[in-house]
Amino acid sequence: MSIIVLGTVALDTVKTPFGLRKEMLGGSAVHFAMSARLFTRVNLVAVIGENFPRRHLDFLKQKGLVLTSLRCVSGKTFQWEGRYEGDLNTAFTLKTELGVLCDFKPVISSQQRKIKNIFLANVDPQAQKSLLRSMHSPRLVGLDSMNYWIKNKRKALLSLLKEVDIYVANDQEARDLSGETNLVKAAKCLRSFGPPMVLIKKGEHGVLFYCDKFIFSLPAYPTEKVVDPTGAGDTFAGGFMGYLSKINRISQESIQKAIAYGTIAASFNVEGFGADKTSAITMKNIHKRLLEFRKLILFK
Amino acid sequence: MSIIVLGTVALDTVKTPFGLRKEMLGGSAVHFAMSARLFTRVNLVAVIGENFPRRHLDFLKQKGLVLTSLRCVSGKTFQWEGRYEGDLNTAFTLKTELGVLCDFKPVISSQQRKIKNIFLANVDPQAQKSLLRSMHSPRLVGLDSMNYWIKNKRKALLSLLKEVDIYVANDQEARDLSGETNLVKAAKCLRSFGPPMVLIKKGEHGVLFYCDKFIFSLPAYPTEKVVDPTGAGDTFAGGFMGYLSKINRISQESIQKAIAYGTIAASFNVEGFGADKTSAITMKNIHKRLLEFRKLILFK
Repeated sequence: MSIIVLGTVALDTVKTPFGLRKEMLGGSAVHFAMSARLFTRVNLVAVIGENFPRRHLDFLKQKGLVLTSLRCVSGKTFQWEGRYEGDLNTAFTLKTELGVLCDFKPVISSQQRKIKNIFLANVDPQAQKSLLRSMHSPRLVGLDSMNYWIKNKRKALLSLLKEVDIYVANDQEARDLSGETNLVKAAKCLRSFGPPMVLIKKGEHGVLFYCDKFIFSLPAYPTEKVVDPTGAGDTFAGGFMGYLSKINRISQESIQKAIAYGTIAASFNVEGFGADKTSAITMKNIHKRLLEFRKLILFK
Repeated sequence: MSIIVLGTVALDTVKTPFGLRKEMLGGSAVHFAMSARLFTRVNLVAVIGENFPRRHLDFLKQKGLVLTSLRCVSGKTFQWEGRYEGDLNTAFTLKTELGVLCDFKPVISSQQRKIKNIFLANVDPQAQKSLLRSMHSPRLVGLDSMNYWIKNKRKALLSLLKEVDIYVANDQEARDLSGETNLVKAAKCLRSFGPPMVLIKKGEHGVLFYCDKFIFSLPAYPTEKVVDPTGAGDTFAGGFMGYLSKINRISQESIQKAIAYGTIAASFNVEGFGADKTSAITMKNIHKRLLEFRKLILFK
């Protein structure tokens, strides 16, 4: 079954110890789509400005994404500029230019409203809610957010949390929104806000999943080749949601497998700039590394 | 097969959000022994001062530890005072009084020299080396250290690394000693310093094991009951080394199992002050939680 992702399509300028890349194709929706596409048909809901390069658009098409709800409006495409240092675990934002993102109202087709799986990647909670409301009867709704909205639109975010199935947050966001420092407590608290499932992303340390029935935890795939971690969280979410959309079954087993797929997808993301690596991989690459990963964490 | 641990026996004063405990029984050798004792006979090599409470000594005896090389000398027992805040991941040292630790020269019996397994917990690298040299033909030598020695006795530590089988370090120590921020790179670098096996402890994020043949990674057992993490790393090392000493076989399988045992032992340590929890557990508790842990990280 296909999936809709609402998020950003951006031009990212990123500096890491491995080099500088200017105005790369980036954004939460793009990184999500690059891994979700491996499992299912991905409908992109986002906005770009007139300056969005034709080659990026061609590239997205070539990757098989459904772009009917990728709107192009007058103005500038959302831009993010950042750098990473040392262990590459923390992004330092140098510049954010919202551009056309400021007045973005997601609009989808009547066909798309019938899609059962939806991921609300990081944009204004009001835009997320508006899209969610326009869906007919979604089966699986995932939500991501970020510190800016936790701080500035907390009420809208808390209201939205009551309407989603799974909330995906990084460790700092989970701590900020819950007020709990212990991550298991934070997950429990976030679950009490509404979403039956909570997934806390810990960057190089992997993930922690919480629901009423079970907890699940995986380390990250250990890689020494971290070139640019931008979008790793969205890539993880894409693998996770993509797999669950594909198999169309929510169970302990499918969730655990989905988390493993997300983990592997994210491990490819960090090995190249932007979506360089994830846009080039196939399920064969994913499965090969998944086998290696299993050995890395299995004990008898 | 039995094991020798060289380390500290301390009086710890610890403040966490869960309360204040004064002059508890602590120290690296004690925390190590509390989990290692579950697997094998533990010989403690350490020093205490005249003020060391009789009840602590009785307690150590009662736990079945071999105390013939626990020397009591004139002077004060080593004391550490610290506090934890927030997520309890970082210890803030308020006071360290070395006392009798200053002039400590480990001495063991001729019987103990024949023991095949040895863990050099955190003390001066020169004391570690002196004990190692007095052993007849050790089969498995583990080493821990800390930032103070990495900074102040780097040369002695590097020399010692060439003589051990496994180096156990926390993530910060691994980064400091290797100069690498990426932990896989750090582990590789530390391995190049000599020890065939490197184990990086990441606190609430679990562990990363590196050797030439394989990498292994486990998350921590997710617990929301973190009361006092003092000694968690030593407790981990005790479970790890204790199991390997018991089964007397170094293989990929036994190492992975040993890491799982260490992880579970450490998860008990953090749930109580000092060694309150680990001193009270049995192998039954360990195995029960190990089963739960397996479910927490297994995917099909």
